[in-house]
Amino acid sequence: MSRQMKLIAFMQAQNCTNYTGSWRHAASATNWHSKDYYEHIGRVLEHGKFHLAFFDDRLAIPDRFGDDFVQTVANGIRAAKLDPMMTALTMGLATEKLGIGATYSTTYYEPFHVARIFASLDLMLGGRAAWNVVTSLNDSEAANFGRSEHLAHDLRYDRADEFMEVVLGHWDSWEDGAIVHDREGGVFADPARVGRLDHRGPFFQSRGPFTVPRSPQGHPVVIQAGQSGRGKAFATRWGELLFVIYPSLAVGQNSYAELKMQLAAAGREATPITPAVYAIVGETRAMAEDKRAYLESLAKPADALALLSEVLNYDFSRKAPGDAFTDEELDAIGGLRAIRDRAIRMSGKTNPTVEEFVRASGRGTLSEFPIFMGTPAEVADQMQEWFEKACDGFVISATHSPGAYEDFVRLVVPELQRRGLFHHDYEGSTLRGNLGLTRPEPRAWRSERPQPALAAQ
Amino acid sequence: MSRQMKLIAFMQAQNCTNYTGSWRHAASATNWHSKDYYEHIGRVLEHGKFHLAFFDDRLAIPDRFGDDFVQTVANGIRAAKLDPMMTALTMGLATEKLGIGATYSTTYYEPFHVARIFASLDLMLGGRAAWNVVTSLNDSEAANFGRSEHLAHDLRYDRADEFMEVVLGHWDSWEDGAIVHDREGGVFADPARVGRLDHRGPFFQSRGPFTVPRSPQGHPVVIQAGQSGRGKAFATRWGELLFVIYPSLAVGQNSYAELKMQLAAAGREATPITPAVYAIVGETRAMAEDKRAYLESLAKPADALALLSEVLNYDFSRKAPGDAFTDEELDAIGGLRAIRDRAIRMSGKTNPTVEEFVRASGRGTLSEFPIFMGTPAEVADQMQEWFEKACDGFVISATHSPGAYEDFVRLVVPELQRRGLFHHDYEGSTLRGNLGLTRPEPRAWRSERPQPALAAQ
Repeated sequence: MSRQMKLIAFMQAQNCTNYTGSWRHAASATNWHSKDYYEHIGRVLEHGKFHLAFFDDRLAIPDRFGDDFVQTVANGIRAAKLDPMMTALTMGLATEKLGIGATYSTTYYEPFHVARIFASLDLMLGGRAAWNVVTSLNDSEAANFGRSEHLAHDLRYDRADEFMEVVLGHWDSWEDGAIVHDREGGVFADPARVGRLDHRGPFFQSRGPFTVPRSPQGHPVVIQAGQSGRGKAFATRWGELLFVIYPSLAVGQNSYAELKMQLAAAGREATPITPAVYAIVGETRAMAEDKRAYLESLAKPADALALLSEVLNYDFSRKAPGDAFTDEELDAIGGLRAIRDRAIRMSGKTNPTVEEFVRASGRGTLSEFPIFMGTPAEVADQMQEWFEKACDGFVISATHSPGAYEDFVRLVVPELQRRGLFHHDYEGSTLRGNLGLTRPEPRAWRSERPQPALAAQ
Repeated sequence: MSRQMKLIAFMQAQNCTNYTGSWRHAASATNWHSKDYYEHIGRVLEHGKFHLAFFDDRLAIPDRFGDDFVQTVANGIRAAKLDPMMTALTMGLATEKLGIGATYSTTYYEPFHVARIFASLDLMLGGRAAWNVVTSLNDSEAANFGRSEHLAHDLRYDRADEFMEVVLGHWDSWEDGAIVHDREGGVFADPARVGRLDHRGPFFQSRGPFTVPRSPQGHPVVIQAGQSGRGKAFATRWGELLFVIYPSLAVGQNSYAELKMQLAAAGREATPITPAVYAIVGETRAMAEDKRAYLESLAKPADALALLSEVLNYDFSRKAPGDAFTDEELDAIGGLRAIRDRAIRMSGKTNPTVEEFVRASGRGTLSEFPIFMGTPAEVADQMQEWFEKACDGFVISATHSPGAYEDFVRLVVPELQRRGLFHHDYEGSTLRGNLGLTRPEPRAWRSERPQPALAAQ
């Protein structure tokens, strides 16, 4: 079988999609705080044979700009955030094959908790769960969790490395088949096939034994999106699926080659690399262009500054649009460093201005991600070119919801299938199987220690 | 309408019910790690018009006895614990009216997280969620969360008091109707009706604004089970539904009168008080007696010691069965103090022995909770007497699962309904409404501060 692309939906458990203006769309759903919304989108995506839908998250609404939540709330700039595990499970229980992921932070949660809730999600979904690992971004999140400021960038990743060791360690606590369930003999499980992690490191201690047995796919799939230098090292070490942002195909080709090399060096060649994109599709080119013009008209200037301040953990109200950032200010930017680096690269200046930051980031506008626009064939052409040169699939972000997914599934998916670029159905029932990832070998506790006698009495 | 009882199911997201021997029952389900198990029980309970099912939790398996998990795993002594939010939502999405609760700890989680995930559960279930507040019990839980030992008893409750202030404060952040959703005008919500908690206390800081709007029932119902002196003060201050354990009707009558007085003093008369019980019902008395004898035969001595060590955070392997506890040892017992106090009371000694502790606690045996046994009419008689004298309903704990709930719903519920002691159907669609609790008034942010102009631009 020829190589086929993976399709992933980028979900938000909030009042808008990743594109803030989406909620102002005349056909946007207003029931984003009810189960019906997530169930409907899940069914649409499964009808379109998407491999996975995963929920983004932040632990605060964007109020870094002017330390002000009034604009955020009034303008609906991602002004709500439900817990993504709740929306993820809701979507998962309305579907049977679709993979389901959620974002949880290594900075504000405990590894035992994250390991347990995701392992439990994976069991409830029969082996369809994924965890998108983030280290969180800004002081607003810190303030909600009782910290005075967000951890410094590299320290955050050192901590996250150890967090992953703990979570993956716990996930390996129960071997497959450890549970015997011999009711008459009174033997529940074979203790020789259950281990205790006993982790003691510089950031975390967590003992075990872990309380959740292994799922049909072994453990949840790990999604990672680190884009800075340190973030990429983290992503290629741990990610089983990489979520990337390519500002253009040319940049994407370089990035893809570099990541593939790093992954190969780590023995992780199978890891799919999937860039975020918007798709705007119409039955005719004119229809698509009209859709795009309407969508673009929904953005407000307040959106960009609120979101940029959020993601860079920097209050942009301190500077006028034309003011350049000093070296010290650039160093102090602690959120998504990849955006800072892109602003420097795109502006061609070592000290870009606020305006250049806005332009480089695309935040608050549709140009945050590349846009594939046109007829179904035109959109498929663009996807095909990218897929052949620079990626293994796509993270489809919705321009509005649920309309963007309904359009994509109705118009683009059949064209991709016709070209043999996308599967006609799910091969298996686990996410790992459908992504073509190998099932991780569990740790063999028995071989590591003397085997105690079965101690049922 | 005459007074009617509330019925609540005591759920466990683990390999057995509250009664460890249950998993050894020939008809116990072995699919407790799949959604099917929780969906089935939810449907059974809703068919029986139960008001609520709530999930117990511990953050470790019971391995305090001899610091040994081998016995625990081999014997299946609550040897697994899924995250209860995952099983709760699974059960909730398979039902339409049944209230759904889960236990989360004030000691090992952050108040912002607990507030957010429960508020999100409440939205996904359309106002049917409840939170059972616990302060956790033992060093095994502490070790999983990187602490060397569990917090001392009273300190834990001081911390929990402030935890409640934060969670309830966040739950009041969005007034009802704050969301305008004016897509054309570009006004998402009225910022004058959204507040920021800005909590700063000795244990917690949490800023806000909270990211989840108010649910149809205002906020989740708070369940509390504190039984020690300090625990009761906490329970009567915060609980909207009290989960209690009465070793006998006589004790229950005193306890009920005392709690009712304390609740009245706090202006919380409506709070239902519901003791945990087992029900063993058969079409004939002989059938019920046979069921009971079979159930009792499923206990093992290892169960009692493992569970007692867990709940008292004390390693009982250190002492022989006849050894008495010294005053220092009794002082050092840090888990559920009510059990310690009961051992002293029941033994008539200031320094009870290990055996007396086992007997007083009933852990690992069916005598942990009172047992209502007999024909449907006999079980209903006992429930009626307790209900008329000492409680507002019951927390029905399953002797085995799902059989105990199937029996109860088929045999006992119709008899209770026939007597007018139990409702024939749900009155409303929120848990709060069905429990007869008033919907909490949201904080009126507008009246507290100058009202900013609607800042949409």
